[in-house]
Amino acid sequence: MIIVMKPNASKESIAQVSEVITSAGLSVHLSQGEEVTIIGVVGNKALLDPCAIEVNPAVEKIVPITESYKLANIKFHPTPTSFPVKNTVIGGDTMTVMAGPCAVETEEQLISIAHAVKKSGATFLRGGAFKPRTSPYSFQGLEEEGLRFLKAASQETGLATICEVTSSHAIEAAVSYVDMLQIGARNMQNFELLKEAGKSGLPVLLKRGLAATIDEWLNAAEYIMSEGNERIALCERGIRTFETSTRNTLDLSAVCVLKEKTHLPVIVDPSHATGVRGYVAPLAKAAVACGANGLMIEVHNNPAKALSDGPQSLDFAQFDTLMEELKPYIALSGRTLK
Amino acid sequence: MIIVMKPNASKESIAQVSEVITSAGLSVHLSQGEEVTIIGVVGNKALLDPCAIEVNPAVEKIVPITESYKLANIKFHPTPTSFPVKNTVIGGDTMTVMAGPCAVETEEQLISIAHAVKKSGATFLRGGAFKPRTSPYSFQGLEEEGLRFLKAASQETGLATICEVTSSHAIEAAVSYVDMLQIGARNMQNFELLKEAGKSGLPVLLKRGLAATIDEWLNAAEYIMSEGNERIALCERGIRTFETSTRNTLDLSAVCVLKEKTHLPVIVDPSHATGVRGYVAPLAKAAVACGANGLMIEVHNNPAKALSDGPQSLDFAQFDTLMEELKPYIALSGRTLK
Amino acid sequence: MIIVMKPNASKESIAQVSEVITSAGLSVHLSQGEEVTIIGVVGNKALLDPCAIEVNPAVEKIVPITESYKLANIKFHPTPTSFPVKNTVIGGDTMTVMAGPCAVETEEQLISIAHAVKKSGATFLRGGAFKPRTSPYSFQGLEEEGLRFLKAASQETGLATICEVTSSHAIEAAVSYVDMLQIGARNMQNFELLKEAGKSGLPVLLKRGLAATIDEWLNAAEYIMSEGNERIALCERGIRTFETSTRNTLDLSAVCVLKEKTHLPVIVDPSHATGVRGYVAPLAKAAVACGANGLMIEVHNNPAKALSDGPQSLDFAQFDTLMEELKPYIALSGRTLK
Amino acid sequence: MIIVMKPNASKESIAQVSEVITSAGLSVHLSQGEEVTIIGVVGNKALLDPCAIEVNPAVEKIVPITESYKLANIKFHPTPTSFPVKNTVIGGDTMTVMAGPCAVETEEQLISIAHAVKKSGATFLRGGAFKPRTSPYSFQGLEEEGLRFLKAASQETGLATICEVTSSHAIEAAVSYVDMLQIGARNMQNFELLKEAGKSGLPVLLKRGLAATIDEWLNAAEYIMSEGNERIALCERGIRTFETSTRNTLDLSAVCVLKEKTHLPVIVDPSHATGVRGYVAPLAKAAVACGANGLMIEVHNNPAKALSDGPQSLDFAQFDTLMEELKPYIALSGRTLK
Repeated sequence: MIIVMKPNASKESIAQVSEVITSAGLSVHLSQGEEVTIIGVVGNKALLDPCAIEVNPAVEKIVPITESYKLANIKFHPTPTSFPVKNTVIGGDTMTVMAGPCAVETEEQLISIAHAVKKSGATFLRGGAFKPRTSPYSFQGLEEEGLRFLKAASQETGLATICEVTSSHAIEAAVSYVDMLQIGARNMQNFELLKEAGKSGLPVLLKRGLAATIDEWLNAAEYIMSEGNERIALCERGIRTFETSTRNTLDLSAVCVLKEKTHLPVIVDPSHATGVRGYVAPLAKAAVACGANGLMIEVHNNPAKALSDGPQSLDFAQFDTLMEELKPYIALSGRTLK
Repeated sequence: MIIVMKPNASKESIAQVSEVITSAGLSVHLSQGEEVTIIGVVGNKALLDPCAIEVNPAVEKIVPITESYKLANIKFHPTPTSFPVKNTVIGGDTMTVMAGPCAVETEEQLISIAHAVKKSGATFLRGGAFKPRTSPYSFQGLEEEGLRFLKAASQETGLATICEVTSSHAIEAAVSYVDMLQIGARNMQNFELLKEAGKSGLPVLLKRGLAATIDEWLNAAEYIMSEGNERIALCERGIRTFETSTRNTLDLSAVCVLKEKTHLPVIVDPSHATGVRGYVAPLAKAAVACGANGLMIEVHNNPAKALSDGPQSLDFAQFDTLMEELKPYIALSGRTLK
Repeated sequence: MIIVMKPNASKESIAQVSEVITSAGLSVHLSQGEEVTIIGVVGNKALLDPCAIEVNPAVEKIVPITESYKLANIKFHPTPTSFPVKNTVIGGDTMTVMAGPCAVETEEQLISIAHAVKKSGATFLRGGAFKPRTSPYSFQGLEEEGLRFLKAASQETGLATICEVTSSHAIEAAVSYVDMLQIGARNMQNFELLKEAGKSGLPVLLKRGLAATIDEWLNAAEYIMSEGNERIALCERGIRTFETSTRNTLDLSAVCVLKEKTHLPVIVDPSHATGVRGYVAPLAKAAVACGANGLMIEVHNNPAKALSDGPQSLDFAQFDTLMEELKPYIALSGRTLK
Repeated sequence: MIIVMKPNASKESIAQVSEVITSAGLSVHLSQGEEVTIIGVVGNKALLDPCAIEVNPAVEKIVPITESYKLANIKFHPTPTSFPVKNTVIGGDTMTVMAGPCAVETEEQLISIAHAVKKSGATFLRGGAFKPRTSPYSFQGLEEEGLRFLKAASQETGLATICEVTSSHAIEAAVSYVDMLQIGARNMQNFELLKEAGKSGLPVLLKRGLAATIDEWLNAAEYIMSEGNERIALCERGIRTFETSTRNTLDLSAVCVLKEKTHLPVIVDPSHATGVRGYVAPLAKAAVACGANGLMIEVHNNPAKALSDGPQSLDFAQFDTLMEELKPYIALSGRTLK
């Protein structure tokens, strides 16, 4: 931590700030420039209350030097994380493709989608049973019934399954039915939910919040990991910006930043990011090209009748074409679908 | 709902879209322009699945005409809402001032703050017992003990109390101790929490999400209201933008927009919005000047030692000066502190 | 300037960075922490090329300590700037009100508006003669003819006049007709235009760019000032965010930030910021309440027929009511209309 | 254009709005729903002043149906544009790679960079001679001398050259020396400059403004095209968002959106978008994978000594590796470097 004093800071205020630091058992490195004085803090900053420093009117700003997340930090865990889920793996040299409907509708539908996406090469079946919807009057999901359909589809096809959970009740229900939990963008800083997902024993896909910085996102992962659960993957799904021609703005540079900051695998969801069917395929290729460990793609047996998010879903033929087109990009990435 | 067809839409695709609408029991108004055809939908749109229309490749876009929130909508409830909380009122001709520490620390601290803010004119004591913090390693609040201190301070001073809740467990605990619940920015779309707050029987202050549109915010209020709880106030606390010289960007035009769209009272929190002590007073005056029903202000007995958010807290003398300076602005607003 | 080295930085790379600094004639303050090494740079940083440092792979980040703007910086010029324009003043204890149509249409129109706004208390007549429009097919202004009308209206009423300029040709034309130049949001970083405005000899109102940080804005002012022109006022007119219920998001906290960082006067334009007539009055009051030195308000004799930006213009009666309502707020601000 | 009336709109106000439309020579299609009345406008909207309608208090909103740009619009020009520049082509089945230093420094430097990037496969030499810099005290470019070096490097290597222009004076100078003009992000809505670039006779690369919507960007292209210049390429270079771990947020979905809306070629600049050397290669691959017609990449002979933007420049070896790695992606895109 570095403390930058104001240009006119008196010797007294510099001494006061130094005193706060040393009285917390840390040491001080003073750097007196012509214009400003800088105070470097040496030692374990967890012992120090930054407010006790910021409150000094002669302090210009405090610059943190080290990240607050530890378990998710590549500096302390330089090997990329990979972990098995059912018959597949996330991370390492595996390319993960999670495919399926936005919302689970019927058992027949889900099983037919599961067969179709598996045939095209998907390694995971996704399907929403608890849908967070902007309006209370929109369809909110089949809940436990939807989970049962996911289990049935998994038993039929051998695909691993993933489902968003929106409450502790949903987590309790989901652990008996699915292989991986998803925390959605709206709940990325629902810290109670993060802690319960951490305790669930299941691997977790943590989507980025609509306006979350990468730092906040990694701290959210830290909440899950600090409960002893290290099987976490991160999912970039678009951030909110001023641009309205796509639902959100897919931030593919986040994939590059994450690869520098964390050992956790990174999945990209071009379907939710753009909300437009025609943009899914080119951005899926781009995601693979810039280093993503996997994709989450919405697929529906009949997008025209989908109960939610229809316009961004691919039909079976479109998904099959995409998977075919993705093959050379996956090969170039050094990963394999498995 | 209006459906805009693409310029080259064939008669067949127009007929198909019309068919979807009429088969759902609604009627169609065709408007054939030189460049484009517009299809107006007449009737109860809840019967209609927009996806069934959007999926038609000849459809350019669908324009919703009516808001999805009803109970929060001023069109259906033109009288401004006001409701009593303990000995005070929120809304109507009352100016509400909620003041207190970011986080409750000790009983003595809280009682001393309560006495001080009451003396200066505050009508509510605020204080966090459950703190949502970006990092799992930061101080997270005293939880139930903090609630007890709030109750003690309320009994001593007669002030109404408000506390943020972050989980259903926190709501269960809070109902026995405080007079009003607060849902924080990070949980604005934690729909499970909204519903439980709706069922709690307590009035709720709903803070705006960091990147929430006003429409999403009013839909979040609708979640609480649809559980039968109509004692809701909204709290503008800054949105996330590219500007970094304040923690968030306080959106005072939101106050004006809300006054046009909803009957619910609007509170403004300049302390969290800016994160800078020196900006609290001028923006508090601005909030009153543009029509807010109240303010939420952080006050601390010793901001230099505050366990969280120190740099934005006012001390007793600063808060007293602010309340003194606010008096003529409150008088101009036609409201009174009471 | 502070250089933060990566945790694993070798002694060699620290020595290399130090060498770059000392060979540029500056000195180094090393601060060796347990986790990271910090290098403080002492001396005139203008001599140093930061790239020569950043390129060292062991450098984590460079933290600038001092602002790059000097003439606009309150640290070097602590007295608030005020300057006369025709018969009025901007800054100091004057409250400036610039009012008039978005675009100048006819001489009669402009003179009638000038009389009306003067009667209600405005101190400046604004009117666009060169209109920057998103589409090349929209009305672009009367150009020199519009300037003539502004001069005529000024001669009739004694009001000072201000007009946006969008090119060096427009500046050349404007200097003969108006009392103050305006640089619009789209041209805030049109550095050629800034320099020419600096050389024009006229005072300049510099509007904030749509996505400009306050720092970039003050650096843009520095471009004008570095040409020897110190009669600059800044105009907050809304920034671009994700929220669409107002045209832009008026950032009133910027007024507070500017008051801390610069001695230049600050004007607020609620008309362009919101694009909605009904929001102009409450936000004008808020702007005065939080310390603005003035307002820019669109007024039109017949907003229903305005050639541009009609929906946000006030008519004469609305403007007169606003000025009446503003009086007590102006009195509270310690400034006077004059 | 569709006009949505407020729910309580009287028959009189509906008649008034209709009257405004028909008196401008257009026709009206009324669509009376249970909740709201919609007025469709049929005919040439250029004849109609929207303000005359918006000013009616019974109007809820006006929804534009057709884009204001025509020449850049794929609807009116469905064939993708391609055009020759010197010995190369932009658009069609050509993959363009523009490489070179941020700022031109010396003739030797530029010639050595030109040889290096040509050898690695670049088709264009880029180099800034007029640098728009945030602070007036930063290095602003060699101006005409830099242009001369570009011409010399082009003569030596046969590479086409491109240089940013920031003023009409710069355009006048540049036409004698370079093969293509670049309009930078800060000047995207400097409409005077756009028009002069349109008249210059040279092809133009138009970078996206920092906070420009795709619609505004295409309208800016329309300014250039409406001067008779149809040799325009668009360059995505990152937009401003809340995320600070990259300089800007590269919006690759914009490539997909542009491919749907315009026939103009699209170039992507990952160097300026991210400001981080290590992110250039993965995002260059992603850009090619999602359909870009080309790349703009910063390359420097000695990034450690670059006068501007060093940290994002590749050295010769890094650029050569990138070009090698890009080959299979370019092959997959169906385009060729030529």
